[in-house]
Amino acid sequence: MSKMIFMTQADIPRQYYNLAADLPFSLDPPLHPGTGQPITPADLAAIFPMALIEQEMSSQREIPIPEEILEIYALYRPTPLIRASELEKLLGTPARIYFKYEGASPVGSHKPNTAIAQAYYNKKEGTKRLVTETGAGQWGSSLAFACQKFGMECKVFMVRVSFDQKPYRKAMMMVYGATVLASPSPTTNAGRQILAQDPHSPGSLGIAISEAVEEAAGRDDTKYALGSVLNHVLLHQTIIGQETKRQLEMAGEKADVVIGCHGGGSNFGGLAFPFVRDKINGAKIDIVAVEPLSCPTLTRGKLEYDFGDTIGMTPLIRMYTLGHQFMPPGIHAGGLRYHGASPLVSKLLEHGLIRAEALPQNDIFKGAVMFAQAEGIIPAPESAHAVELAIREAVKAKEEGKAKVIVFNLSGHGLLDMQAYQDFCDGKLEQEPEITLDRSVAKAS
Amino acid sequence: MSKMIFMTQADIPRQYYNLAADLPFSLDPPLHPGTGQPITPADLAAIFPMALIEQEMSSQREIPIPEEILEIYALYRPTPLIRASELEKLLGTPARIYFKYEGASPVGSHKPNTAIAQAYYNKKEGTKRLVTETGAGQWGSSLAFACQKFGMECKVFMVRVSFDQKPYRKAMMMVYGATVLASPSPTTNAGRQILAQDPHSPGSLGIAISEAVEEAAGRDDTKYALGSVLNHVLLHQTIIGQETKRQLEMAGEKADVVIGCHGGGSNFGGLAFPFVRDKINGAKIDIVAVEPLSCPTLTRGKLEYDFGDTIGMTPLIRMYTLGHQFMPPGIHAGGLRYHGASPLVSKLLEHGLIRAEALPQNDIFKGAVMFAQAEGIIPAPESAHAVELAIREAVKAKEEGKAKVIVFNLSGHGLLDMQAYQDFCDGKLEQEPEITLDRSVAKAS
Repeated sequence: MSKMIFMTQADIPRQYYNLAADLPFSLDPPLHPGTGQPITPADLAAIFPMALIEQEMSSQREIPIPEEILEIYALYRPTPLIRASELEKLLGTPARIYFKYEGASPVGSHKPNTAIAQAYYNKKEGTKRLVTETGAGQWGSSLAFACQKFGMECKVFMVRVSFDQKPYRKAMMMVYGATVLASPSPTTNAGRQILAQDPHSPGSLGIAISEAVEEAAGRDDTKYALGSVLNHVLLHQTIIGQETKRQLEMAGEKADVVIGCHGGGSNFGGLAFPFVRDKINGAKIDIVAVEPLSCPTLTRGKLEYDFGDTIGMTPLIRMYTLGHQFMPPGIHAGGLRYHGASPLVSKLLEHGLIRAEALPQNDIFKGAVMFAQAEGIIPAPESAHAVELAIREAVKAKEEGKAKVIVFNLSGHGLLDMQAYQDFCDGKLEQEPEITLDRSVAKAS
Repeated sequence: MSKMIFMTQADIPRQYYNLAADLPFSLDPPLHPGTGQPITPADLAAIFPMALIEQEMSSQREIPIPEEILEIYALYRPTPLIRASELEKLLGTPARIYFKYEGASPVGSHKPNTAIAQAYYNKKEGTKRLVTETGAGQWGSSLAFACQKFGMECKVFMVRVSFDQKPYRKAMMMVYGATVLASPSPTTNAGRQILAQDPHSPGSLGIAISEAVEEAAGRDDTKYALGSVLNHVLLHQTIIGQETKRQLEMAGEKADVVIGCHGGGSNFGGLAFPFVRDKINGAKIDIVAVEPLSCPTLTRGKLEYDFGDTIGMTPLIRMYTLGHQFMPPGIHAGGLRYHGASPLVSKLLEHGLIRAEALPQNDIFKGAVMFAQAEGIIPAPESAHAVELAIREAVKAKEEGKAKVIVFNLSGHGLLDMQAYQDFCDGKLEQEPEITLDRSVAKAS
């Protein structure tokens, strides 16, 4: 049997899968931060193009992917599904482990799947400039590339701690033609407010979102693009799970366990949602979201309405949250440093269709190094959460003597995160960063 | 038509192609540095296993690839051949441009093709430890990974200038379990000799080779592995050209121009040799090796016997050389900073079967940024030489109105070379580094 399961480019899915159409329960509407009433499309029109707002609220099961998007997907899709046979040997497990390798994209992660779509729909409605936030830089470099492809300007607020830890990501965004600022920055009211409280603030995704939304709302030619959390973002990512299901079929396999790391929910949802559909229809699948122990949104957060950003400019979203002012420690998995969660993922967790696990930083690097030595690919620190949980599930399968099929999303490679590996090799990650959970969550006034 | 031309894993070539079998002229034997006589297998046995020495001297056309090697190749092979259709659009050229993407390997370059083979043959003959040199680190990380797969120790002498410029490569080698030293180092006679002359020596591949060979020759459990230049290294790389030819056939194309960057000759030879065979048999193909203007071995070197290393420990090889004491400037394409060239490639150039071009550093980054903005992938500085020449050939095809098929080897991505791109974006590469050509070439005494 082949180790890598390729599909031809003719097999790239031609529609996004909208899980909302299949849920056996209704979703809670986002609320306007001023009125506390459900937001309307008009409320969002200042920062998003109408096509994306429609997708955000759509209940149509399949949304066709325009030809112009498919053409750019063809730069790197379909990504391979790879049997982690070398890792299996190392673990001596009867489990069969497969990973979907989204790191095969030019920027090294799954993020272009939605960046390309968002740039396309914005371009079509006349947007000249997109502004966004980024954590580790996977999202920022993806949007920078997508804007370049559609001839739009791109500005990225990059979380300060990652801006300093990952200078190569910044260079990458510059190569694609974007402007990059460290966040909090002195260029926005939101940034100045945070800097006044703490001039050495390491930043967070929540703060960077506040800055980007503020700039987009204030300029007619500019819209905002978000890399995760929202329904339309996860919708675009379902191309991952759709491909994975077909590739498993090609290999004659059925998934028993499906794993993705979780920050805002986009790589997890992208892989998991097509499997959640099967689960709703009766399939027995264990679907697991993995997050950092030091930013435990799903495992220790509260399910309630909260802001998506730190300052409180976004609509209120019903989601698992650590509180919008929670400041996660500066762990290397910058893409998972988010106080909230996708409302769709939150709803699945609430209803027991998925479960969540939290892992310590040192353990996920142990797993990542084992994986790299076996399979060659060095995982992104974010993806390393999925790797380590897959290893634990494979060890459990060995103890139980069960030949389970474990599938996880290797959402990115770690070649631009090597300082993290250097720190791990130097023994600097042994102490888990401490957190204080602040439970004050804003209510709609 | 598909943009990416995949083959199935069943189609991975099962033999290496040995160009020596098809050459219409004889090769010049390497000479013993002490006696000036052609070297014998016994002379090489201190640093290489017998299987590789046999391959070095073989005239057998096809050498079967052992199953154990194919199994590890399956981690990333076959690599895709990709139509650079977005670049074509940008250039408005009638040429059809294809690139073989060797950066798809886990370490990000073509180097594992020979690293895996060398580790395998060494392991089979009882070697416990491999020692090597590396420039930009592509070779060192490949050998580190290969040694990890076969349970051997690995030690890498990394050229000082790259050791400082590319700390992420060092971290990568550590993840794969290797030991990494900056070269020149105080741990060998060769290193101490160079440091006595210049305590701040930036190092060179020639010096690092001296250090590695010295250590291998002095320890019974240790052999030496070279990442380029020698016949057996290029032999292993021919898997690239064999796949490329099949993929072009699948696309219904015939190459008019074949391009590879040239340092020691391994990615160039790997792509080119199967096409050289066709050329010997009458096909009309323009085959071009591209090198840096500041290390112009093929375009300005002399064809004569010279040492492969700086100190003068290796056999004398008849090749194009800038003199074994030539110190190339610290350009970002660390993998191309070598005074010599593959004797096979040298012989092809001598007989007009290939030609060579030299390009300035700033131009190759201009080409690389244009390529990245079009195709997404950020090229390694080495591979950027091939990219820029492909662009020039495509522009020429436009001027001549010819729908040529241009094929080049994108031998690696540049994600671990982003400092180079930062320097380019900051305008720091506009001045071409100056060189002084020293023509004193050692003769066999």
